[in-house]
Amino acid sequence: MPDLEALKRQAAVRAAALVTDGMRVGLGTGSTAKYAIEELGRRLADGELKGIVGVATSEASDALARQVGIQVEPLDPRPLDLAIDGADEIDPGLNLIKGLGGALLREKLTEVQARQLVIIADHTKLVTQLGEKAPLPVEIARFGFLSTIERLRALGLGGRLRQPGAQPYLTDNGNYIFDAAIPAGTQPATLERTLKGTLGVIDTGFFLGMATRAFVAAPDGVQELSPQT
Amino acid sequence: MPDLEALKRQAAVRAAALVTDGMRVGLGTGSTAKYAIEELGRRLADGELKGIVGVATSEASDALARQVGIQVEPLDPRPLDLAIDGADEIDPGLNLIKGLGGALLREKLTEVQARQLVIIADHTKLVTQLGEKAPLPVEIARFGFLSTIERLRALGLGGRLRQPGAQPYLTDNGNYIFDAAIPAGTQPATLERTLKGTLGVIDTGFFLGMATRAFVAAPDGVQELSPQT
Repeated sequence: MPDLEALKRQAAVRAAALVTDGMRVGLGTGSTAKYAIEELGRRLADGELKGIVGVATSEASDALARQVGIQVEPLDPRPLDLAIDGADEIDPGLNLIKGLGGALLREKLTEVQARQLVIIADHTKLVTQLGEKAPLPVEIARFGFLSTIERLRALGLGGRLRQPGAQPYLTDNGNYIFDAAIPAGTQPATLERTLKGTLGVIDTGFFLGMATRAFVAAPDGVQELSPQT
Repeated sequence: MPDLEALKRQAAVRAAALVTDGMRVGLGTGSTAKYAIEELGRRLADGELKGIVGVATSEASDALARQVGIQVEPLDPRPLDLAIDGADEIDPGLNLIKGLGGALLREKLTEVQARQLVIIADHTKLVTQLGEKAPLPVEIARFGFLSTIERLRALGLGGRLRQPGAQPYLTDNGNYIFDAAIPAGTQPATLERTLKGTLGVIDTGFFLGMATRAFVAAPDGVQELSPQT
C-alpha cells in the first residue's frame, strides 16, 4: 500500500519548482494543493525564491498561504503566471473534475486567468473517462434548490445534495453543491453546456481544456503529462 | 402627464383578479408587483378570496405579503398556479428584461415553475426590441467580478457595475449586478446562451418565452396582451 500523502507531496514539490521569482501564482484548494503552498513557503523561507504573490482560491488556502509567508492578494483582472491545483479526476486530455473540496467556482475563476495551469495528483486520480470514479460537483443556488435538483435529475443525472451534517454544505459563495453521478458515455463538453444553461446552476466542476500540464505521482515516480488530444 | 403609479395599479388589479381560491401564487418584486400583492391582500380581507399561498421572489415581497395577510411559503418543487410580476421591458413576444429591482434570479427560479406568468406594467415598458431603453441586468459572482466584467466587455457589452453608494449593490443571493448595455440588433436568445456560458455569470435579466399574458396600462385603459410570435 503506497502512502498517497507522500505521493501527493512529491507531485506538489515538482509543480512548486516551476515557480520563479516575482511570479503571480494561483493557489489551489484541497489536500494536494496544500502541499504546494507549503513547499512555496519553504522555498521562500530558504531563500530559493522571492517576490512571489499568491492568489488564493479559497479562504482556507488564503489562510495557509499567509501562515507560510506567502504575500496574498485578491484576484484582479491581471493574468497569473501559473496556477497549481489538485484535481479529483484527470482524463488523458487533462480535462478535469474538481470541486470535491467545494471551491470549484473560485478555482475556475482564478485558474482561467493563469497562463499555465499545473495539476498535481496521485495516480489514483487518472481516469479514461471523467465521472468514472468521482461525482461531478454542481454548484447551485440555495434559493429553490429542490427545483433545481429536479431539473438536474430530468437531465438524467443521479447523485445527491452534499450534506455532511444536519445542514447542506455551503460554498464560499453561499451556494449548495449537488454531487452528480454522470451516466457512462457522457460527453463532458456537451453536459457542461447543458448544465450551465440550466436555471439555478452556478457552475460545474468540469475544468475542460484548461490544464496545461500535470504531475502525477505513482509509487515508481512522478510522471509529467501534457494534454493528449 | 399621466400618473404612472395609477396605471401600474390598474394593471396589477387586473392580474390579481385572475387569482382564485386555494391557488399557489408567485409574488413578484418591484414597484408594480407591490400593487398586486396589496390587491391580493385586499381581496383576502374583503372575503373575495381565500386559502391562497404566496411564494415570494424577494425578502421585500415576502415581508409585504405577510403584512397584508397572505400566507407565505418557501419555494418547493410543486408548480405554482400563477405568478404575477412586473417587467422593465416587454417585447411583442412577451419576452422580458427584468431585474432592475435586483431580484432576477429568485424571480426566474420561481416563475419558471408557474403554469401562467402574468406580467403587469405601464405602457412605457413596451419596446420593439429588448434593450432599447433598459439595461440588461447580469448577476455575477462577487469573487473575481472585475475579471468577469472584462469578459462581458469582450462580448461587446457596455454598461457598468450597479453601485448605488460606496459599495456595489448586493442581490439577495450575495452577488453583484452588471447593468449591461446591449448593442442594437442583438438576438436575445443568442446573447442569453452566450452569457450563461460565460464564467462568473450567475444569470441574466432576460425572461424569454416565459410570460403567458400581460396587462399593460395606458391612459386610455388596460390592454391585455398575449405573446405574438
